[in-house]
Amino acid sequence: MFQLHHLNNSRSQRIVWMLEAVGADYEIKVYRRDAKTNLAPPELKKIHPLGRAPVLIHNGKVIAESGAICDYIARQFPDSGMLPESNADSFNDVQFWSHYAEGSFMPSLVTSMVLEKAREKVSPFFIRYVADKIIDGVMDAYFGKNIEANLVFVEGHLADNKWFVGDIPTLADVQMSFGLEGLFDSGKLKPFKHMTTYVQQLRNLQSHRTAMAKMKEAEASF
Amino acid sequence: MFQLHHLNNSRSQRIVWMLEAVGADYEIKVYRRDAKTNLAPPELKKIHPLGRAPVLIHNGKVIAESGAICDYIARQFPDSGMLPESNADSFNDVQFWSHYAEGSFMPSLVTSMVLEKAREKVSPFFIRYVADKIIDGVMDAYFGKNIEANLVFVEGHLADNKWFVGDIPTLADVQMSFGLEGLFDSGKLKPFKHMTTYVQQLRNLQSHRTAMAKMKEAEASF
Repeated sequence: MFQLHHLNNSRSQRIVWMLEAVGADYEIKVYRRDAKTNLAPPELKKIHPLGRAPVLIHNGKVIAESGAICDYIARQFPDSGMLPESNADSFNDVQFWSHYAEGSFMPSLVTSMVLEKAREKVSPFFIRYVADKIIDGVMDAYFGKNIEANLVFVEGHLADNKWFVGDIPTLADVQMSFGLEGLFDSGKLKPFKHMTTYVQQLRNLQSHRTAMAKMKEAEASF
Repeated sequence: MFQLHHLNNSRSQRIVWMLEAVGADYEIKVYRRDAKTNLAPPELKKIHPLGRAPVLIHNGKVIAESGAICDYIARQFPDSGMLPESNADSFNDVQFWSHYAEGSFMPSLVTSMVLEKAREKVSPFFIRYVADKIIDGVMDAYFGKNIEANLVFVEGHLADNKWFVGDIPTLADVQMSFGLEGLFDSGKLKPFKHMTTYVQQLRNLQSHRTAMAKMKEAEASF
């Protein structure tokens, strides 16, 4: 039995999909973000000192960090196809996307989201003007360029590939799904045909549907 | 022969250490950041569509993303001790730190650095006041909290451990070194005894010294 410590509206939703996709026996322990600060509740610190989700517990082992959790689950289910044999080139490709998802793709997206939230909170007109100049300056010089480069890169890859690596979903897809689904839901994928098709295809998978249904059920009963 | 595409003052410096530590035969191809924008030069796009460093080339394979590069090198040198056997608990721990380094530790540090640079550029007094309010607000609500939690977490781990996993350096140390060395060099580790000792110990390793000397030589001859 795997126990997933899950935070609503967070990266742990993809671990629910991963557990469902490999056919694991699992339960979801739900935590709720603070309504005001949007931060994880302090109870999560009892599970792991970082106080973040997802955290997976299995056979007494406490596994944190999404990429490491996906890797751990994949190794428990070697026949799932989630992680190719380590001597295959496709293994290197899965490693690339798994590290890329959180190391390159997400950081600029998260920062952009936080800065946009900060911008919304600024109301007096003349201060708003200064805030816009500062936030736009930071986005133009750094994060915006990064986001654009990443979107072009991923779109180009999905133009030639149905799944991130090979012909079936792997943990590369699980890792990349969180950012892409978030972009899709906020309407930001509209100009990107291949990423849009990819998210629709992913959400049509039975394993993804079942995972999201179980997640919502667990969140509702909390 | 491994070929490392290296950008000055970047994450690729730790890959030089990794290559040196495992005893690889390697060459360093140097790229320089744009003096004005501090961004990587467009030539890097010819090596990998992301246009970022590090990129490793080996036997015709193009490997990007630091965590995936470290994993690839470690698998070429299984006797190096850089990556434990995959059935060991220490393997899970190495995976954790490798994903944590870029997925959790670095993003808030990078954002904080970018916001501080933006703050420095704001000069008129009354605009500076507004900029401080906005940047401090964003830091207080999100990135600052993250940095603090991460520093406390890593300091606590290094209080009980000489290296990140086990008794010898692993790729967990390689991955974590870039952020910790950056914090050390900017004076931000002064309140943290164990992280300070760790960086000093790391820089005393012969493999690290040789790697940094070779890197500087390659950068100087470019």
